[in-house]
Amino acid sequence: MTAPSPNPDSGVARVVCEQLAPRVGDLAHNRELAFDAVRRARSERADIVVLPELATSGYVFADADEARRTAITPGDVFFTDLTRLLTGTRTVVVVGFCEDGGPTLYNSAAVVDADGVRAVYRKTHLWDRETLFFTPGEQMAPVVTTAHGRIGVLICYDLEFPEMPRRLATAGADLIAVPTNWPLEEHPAGERPAEIVQAQAAARANGVYIACADRSGTERGQAWTQGTAVINQYGWLTATATAATRHRAVTDVFLHLSRDKSLSPHNDLLRDRRTDLYAQESPQL
Amino acid sequence: MTAPSPNPDSGVARVVCEQLAPRVGDLAHNRELAFDAVRRARSERADIVVLPELATSGYVFADADEARRTAITPGDVFFTDLTRLLTGTRTVVVVGFCEDGGPTLYNSAAVVDADGVRAVYRKTHLWDRETLFFTPGEQMAPVVTTAHGRIGVLICYDLEFPEMPRRLATAGADLIAVPTNWPLEEHPAGERPAEIVQAQAAARANGVYIACADRSGTERGQAWTQGTAVINQYGWLTATATAATRHRAVTDVFLHLSRDKSLSPHNDLLRDRRTDLYAQESPQL
Repeated sequence: MTAPSPNPDSGVARVVCEQLAPRVGDLAHNRELAFDAVRRARSERADIVVLPELATSGYVFADADEARRTAITPGDVFFTDLTRLLTGTRTVVVVGFCEDGGPTLYNSAAVVDADGVRAVYRKTHLWDRETLFFTPGEQMAPVVTTAHGRIGVLICYDLEFPEMPRRLATAGADLIAVPTNWPLEEHPAGERPAEIVQAQAAARANGVYIACADRSGTERGQAWTQGTAVINQYGWLTATATAATRHRAVTDVFLHLSRDKSLSPHNDLLRDRRTDLYAQESPQL
Repeated sequence: MTAPSPNPDSGVARVVCEQLAPRVGDLAHNRELAFDAVRRARSERADIVVLPELATSGYVFADADEARRTAITPGDVFFTDLTRLLTGTRTVVVVGFCEDGGPTLYNSAAVVDADGVRAVYRKTHLWDRETLFFTPGEQMAPVVTTAHGRIGVLICYDLEFPEMPRRLATAGADLIAVPTNWPLEEHPAGERPAEIVQAQAAARANGVYIACADRSGTERGQAWTQGTAVINQYGWLTATATAATRHRAVTDVFLHLSRDKSLSPHNDLLRDRRTDLYAQESPQL
């Protein structure tokens, strides 16, 4: 059952993050997984849909040739068909794909709505073996003005660099969409995965919402953290994905709340920054 | 019972954070609280002792005059007596005090060992009513080379600006000592206080230890988070303070581990930063 759709003029946005399990190299299968997720989200009048990193291609490539065979451009039929799926809706989809950049490959994410591909961001902080297949992006992550507010985009390991969410917040992002594939790592019993702790801190430090879509299943023996979550502007998790939610995190958010950065009568999260100091060297004593 | 002292040449350092309950304005009382804490730590052969923000003065000042009456300089007998307490030890104490800076007051922390006051840091991000009493510091937080490694210093709200721990980590800090007075705020049941989540993320993002000494008791109706904790370089809490531990967090740490920033064969926490990008504007689409 789905709650009634938010009134589009109420400032409420419905966020859906779906934790897919693509098959590495199987473009047709992965396309259907992604499109099914978008159809489900559309039927629930979702406003913002986040799908995983490299959702079109899978992640655990055997070699660069295999990665190359999964690469598509932002002009690919995948995106024209996705745009068609969104026709007549105000839904915005953020989805990771393996980008054919000519001689090089990028681990990219596209922001797509009924008007087409609004932005492509090329991951700038590559994780582990990604460095063997991909070229890091050379442009700062974008902020895209949508019908539902300003959406920033980061991909997976990018989020672990506090400079990245900070830059997006100062550029006006209300929500940061994070397609991700978090490889499962050990963590102490009773603790959240460290990547989630980082995401919580990034949300709170910047007063922004963060919506992470991680991976389900396993791929060539690689298990995933399955950390899909929507985090509010105070850093608290408001939705997570579990088997019981069919690997979907769904929640309604009030994105305009991210524009109030005040913490006390005397404090403001962004204005309190001391950029003069951050450019100084630390005294060494 | 106390475990045997670490061998001073083993690279192990014993960290003690004590969550004191000073009385606002009562310098003599607060001095004895602090000195008792140092004597306890000394008897356990503690290497690094962290005491709260404004431990000498208390926090909830009625007005600027009251704050002024508690102000001391780094040359005050408090520090010469503290130095004397440390004579013959390798113990380093980080303690918050209300600093008499001539015409202005600072919310400061001193790093003190047997050689005397090694550094004074003046808090640069002032919280709420602190702005009524204190002048913000104009120097980046220091990194102090001690017998036990390189200690960075932040005070309370400073830690919520990810730029600050980042700057200390790039300046070589192994451990960040954080005298703090965290006013108790509501947080969802079962969650850690948000300030701790921020501290965990800061530790992990930078691969540094963080030792926070918060406050016990209440002061003029103000309750405290009582979040005293030592956090390891992966972001996990290794010691906390409770009534059962007599408001002390005690743990042995391997500070040299903070110097290995590698995360994978292809990744390094600090070298993976893209400072070229962080200086760019976010594309606005």
